[in-house]
Amino acid sequence: MSEHNDKIEQLATRHKFDEPVFVTRPTMPDLSDYQKSIAKIWENQWLTNYGPFYRQFQVELMQYMQVEHLTLFNNGTNALMVALQALRINSGEVITTPFTFAATSHVLYWNNIKPVFCDIEPETFNIDPGKIENLIGPDTKAIMPVHVYGNPCDMKAIEKIAQRHGLFVIYDAAHAFGVQLNNRPLSDFGDISAYSFHATKLFSTIEGGALVSNSKSRNDRVHSLSNFGIANEETVIGPGINGKMNEMQASFGLLELQLVENEIAKRQKIAIQYRKFLKDIPGVRTLDDIPGVKHNYAYFPILIDAELYGTDRDNLNIILRKCNIIPRKYFYPLCSHYPCYRSLASANPDNLAVAEKTASQVLCLPMYGALTSETVDIICQMIKSIHEIYVTF
Amino acid sequence: MSEHNDKIEQLATRHKFDEPVFVTRPTMPDLSDYQKSIAKIWENQWLTNYGPFYRQFQVELMQYMQVEHLTLFNNGTNALMVALQALRINSGEVITTPFTFAATSHVLYWNNIKPVFCDIEPETFNIDPGKIENLIGPDTKAIMPVHVYGNPCDMKAIEKIAQRHGLFVIYDAAHAFGVQLNNRPLSDFGDISAYSFHATKLFSTIEGGALVSNSKSRNDRVHSLSNFGIANEETVIGPGINGKMNEMQASFGLLELQLVENEIAKRQKIAIQYRKFLKDIPGVRTLDDIPGVKHNYAYFPILIDAELYGTDRDNLNIILRKCNIIPRKYFYPLCSHYPCYRSLASANPDNLAVAEKTASQVLCLPMYGALTSETVDIICQMIKSIHEIYVTF
Repeated sequence: MSEHNDKIEQLATRHKFDEPVFVTRPTMPDLSDYQKSIAKIWENQWLTNYGPFYRQFQVELMQYMQVEHLTLFNNGTNALMVALQALRINSGEVITTPFTFAATSHVLYWNNIKPVFCDIEPETFNIDPGKIENLIGPDTKAIMPVHVYGNPCDMKAIEKIAQRHGLFVIYDAAHAFGVQLNNRPLSDFGDISAYSFHATKLFSTIEGGALVSNSKSRNDRVHSLSNFGIANEETVIGPGINGKMNEMQASFGLLELQLVENEIAKRQKIAIQYRKFLKDIPGVRTLDDIPGVKHNYAYFPILIDAELYGTDRDNLNIILRKCNIIPRKYFYPLCSHYPCYRSLASANPDNLAVAEKTASQVLCLPMYGALTSETVDIICQMIKSIHEIYVTF
Repeated sequence: MSEHNDKIEQLATRHKFDEPVFVTRPTMPDLSDYQKSIAKIWENQWLTNYGPFYRQFQVELMQYMQVEHLTLFNNGTNALMVALQALRINSGEVITTPFTFAATSHVLYWNNIKPVFCDIEPETFNIDPGKIENLIGPDTKAIMPVHVYGNPCDMKAIEKIAQRHGLFVIYDAAHAFGVQLNNRPLSDFGDISAYSFHATKLFSTIEGGALVSNSKSRNDRVHSLSNFGIANEETVIGPGINGKMNEMQASFGLLELQLVENEIAKRQKIAIQYRKFLKDIPGVRTLDDIPGVKHNYAYFPILIDAELYGTDRDNLNIILRKCNIIPRKYFYPLCSHYPCYRSLASANPDNLAVAEKTASQVLCLPMYGALTSETVDIICQMIKSIHEIYVTF
């Protein structure tokens, strides 16, 4: 054991990066381009409340995404909150996944809905359609799956279940910007899809998000609810929130939109490089591309099988951090472990075996366009060396 | 009647402004200063999630406001939503005012709380402490007053009631930035105060807001809840939201802070000019300064007594708009008239007589530092001429 530690310390000393290699870095538009946009905002003296940049960004984004009904938001969480309110879901239960960021469960709380956690598929880490029907009861209102890491859910299977039981489907598409299935956006499925444009995402508006609806009337309602439910100066249609995307965000998004395809291409290269190297290390699992899917390479998750790899995910995480490589345990802990949800019947770990195992094994490695292939190579070397140290000594 | 119309048309033609004179305009920092801040954000590559500008702004703002525990938010509505959650108020009733912006009632909805509307005082348009106790029942959890137009509520009376009944007090201080009572901020009173820094406010961070708490432990909880309830990488303390103020907002606020005292001084002059002119027009009521209060002159409301003035508020509003003067009917309709609240027992207009009357008479005139005294003079002249036309013909 102390021999491990010595070897690991040597490794960390030898390969420590001067600057932290974070799990992601924001894609930044050209500074002077953005400063020009700012100057325009000063000319307009219009800072928020659906200004000219909002409207231009909305149009260009809809073209890029190939969608017809879209409302921009100040962040993806507020978007998802409004999605439920737009569908008038404000009581009862919604079936969702525990393997996601906190926001997914929290928006249910804010809409007075009890989350019902469903286990996930071992291949994609998305909600397992085969386990949904068993959780449907008289109070179930909707299914809210997440396209985890941007990998599409089994949307056809989910649609069938929803139709059979008369349920809404709201997709948390926070990770799925730019992802296509058979050349169409994932938002073709379900009643509403919610995107996130947070700085840590592939595509960002600093903070931001959007809801894509499947009809004009629904989008009109979403738009109103994103602005306190205000329909006009004298009419408030319902309890909305302040979900407005401001002009600084919208103008950032406009510039960012020009960069996104290039960013995806760079990330694809990095994913290929990671996979090629890591596939031969025992106990390290990577995800493959799915036929028919245009991926966005938003994240690069690996799963560590401690027995084969020689040590567990938590220890690997600690060692990498010693070397100034900062991966993230997305998603650990599961939402079903949070104090506010752990007492729910559906939070019982026995019924969430795949999610529990995945959460204990997963580690997201650094992934962003500006990551050099040298850095990727060193990260892979490290992961290999750590394995060798643990299986040898 | 048709003679009125002719005279009004003549007036409107003669005095129409070339550009709309809006009820307010945002105070803008120097463009090149802000562009320099943007350049710094590009250097840091830190766009949100409590970056260096957030921290610097927080410190400087706390100094300016003379407060010790403050969390910044992406908007005032999200701040107020979190205030209730921070105090664990997520059921029952909260006593509040109907004479306010939609956000005040809506945050109660989002926290699963029934609003109980209380009538207002005829002098300040703030909640009437004399009418609160009658509304307290077994399910009452808190009182949530609003410092309307920045005029302080009768905080001592409210405090006595709250203490007697064991209730929390949350102040919606959206209008009250910079207001002091006996040289102290209004947030000295109550459990939490929520400020708004929206572009239409005296002091703005594009969109933004803040919660001021009266203890470190409470502020720690608020801070966590403003970021999904995340306490650290592996601990989520409760169902928070995405309420984070980003770096574009914080850096704007830092520059704006240098302008705020000058902006208040300019607005004070405008308020004095408005009052001096308007006080002699029959049927037009203005509000006076209150002894011991440092006002912020955030709004300039007038009340129109149709009988004395010659025509009513709605007609005055229409005529001014013909002249390209765009006042606002803040706050009409009352929150108790919205479809989502009008069926509540406390929404009965009979119990809200002062609020009903005020909402039918009030009109907020243009008010912002860059408003010239010539424009103010023309607006006043218009209001006088309209009166004269209606009482003469």
